[in-house]
Amino acid sequence: MQKQQIPDIVVARLPQYLRSLQRMTREGRQVTSSQELAERLGISAAQIRKDLSQFGEFGKQGTGYHIPFLTEQLQKILHVNHDWDMVVVGAGGIGSAIARYKGFNNRGFHVRYIFDNDPEVISSKVGDFVVQDYARMGETIRANGIKLAMIAVPTSIAQDVTNKLVEAGIRAILNYAPISINVPQGVLVQYIDPSIHLQRMTYYLE
Amino acid sequence: MQKQQIPDIVVARLPQYLRSLQRMTREGRQVTSSQELAERLGISAAQIRKDLSQFGEFGKQGTGYHIPFLTEQLQKILHVNHDWDMVVVGAGGIGSAIARYKGFNNRGFHVRYIFDNDPEVISSKVGDFVVQDYARMGETIRANGIKLAMIAVPTSIAQDVTNKLVEAGIRAILNYAPISINVPQGVLVQYIDPSIHLQRMTYYLE
Repeated sequence: MQKQQIPDIVVARLPQYLRSLQRMTREGRQVTSSQELAERLGISAAQIRKDLSQFGEFGKQGTGYHIPFLTEQLQKILHVNHDWDMVVVGAGGIGSAIARYKGFNNRGFHVRYIFDNDPEVISSKVGDFVVQDYARMGETIRANGIKLAMIAVPTSIAQDVTNKLVEAGIRAILNYAPISINVPQGVLVQYIDPSIHLQRMTYYLE
Repeated sequence: MQKQQIPDIVVARLPQYLRSLQRMTREGRQVTSSQELAERLGISAAQIRKDLSQFGEFGKQGTGYHIPFLTEQLQKILHVNHDWDMVVVGAGGIGSAIARYKGFNNRGFHVRYIFDNDPEVISSKVGDFVVQDYARMGETIRANGIKLAMIAVPTSIAQDVTNKLVEAGIRAILNYAPISINVPQGVLVQYIDPSIHLQRMTYYLE
């Protein structure tokens, strides 16, 4: 209920706070402040305090935030206090790189399977994975109750892959194919397209 | 002048419009409408018309947008009516994948060099590239007047790499290292961190 009222733009900043806190933990730190987070993230201290206050009382004026406590709270809020299994669809350059990517460790995500439809690629190794047959993707996702998928396939088949993922029970998709995909109400999509980010910067350059 | 007044959130949507138009062109299309763009992108038609009207008169009520004309205009506005040379720093899994990525074609970007500091990796091949010595990155960037860089290095050295890039004249950085980096005024940064996108979605799931 409460949840519906928090703007998505606030939700979008929480993972950044969590990432900074986890980095501070690796640095052996115990306490931080909205000022320090602000400096690290380029977001104002007032904004950070306001964002966090929407979810509870996490710090005290003058003493700051206890890093392990705030980390745990943010992990609960973002539902990454446990790992989510994921599938990767597409074992090309990008798909293979994200399947092998070490950066999901401790962030709440765990790649379980990588699929491709190319007979020459199926059964080959990608890091520790054996590429699985795309034809069996649906049953594998269903059998394992997997809810998250990353798509790294040619744009021409991205929508078809999306439909199959949704049908198999996938609830959230991170799409690396440079095309907008349609999903039914209740399924979430986020996009990674480096050209979009680059063009957003070249606008300001000449 | 005018430019300063357009909110960055509007600028951020222009690359999505351009991407859709370029896809329509590949589909052999000549004319589109704000309604069709809206359906493809999940952005309201009114918002699209309002965004575009900030930059000029690109379409007519009833006849819609001429795709080649609007494409050309958006490419000019985003300064991608010519290709930008880029460097990739870090020849690990992600860096290698983005250096070889075909998705920059026709989007205004062209990877020229990939650098690494690992003697075992320097001089090896990544697609058509020979990995260059990081020690010579600065002079190469300067000699070629390159303004764009993508960083795919361990978090521990991301800031140091950033400093060297900025010193060499880089004006915009796309950072794949999962850490916030500091840049001087006038240098732009965008981030690609899949865990951030995934956490933004798991918040809504359980």
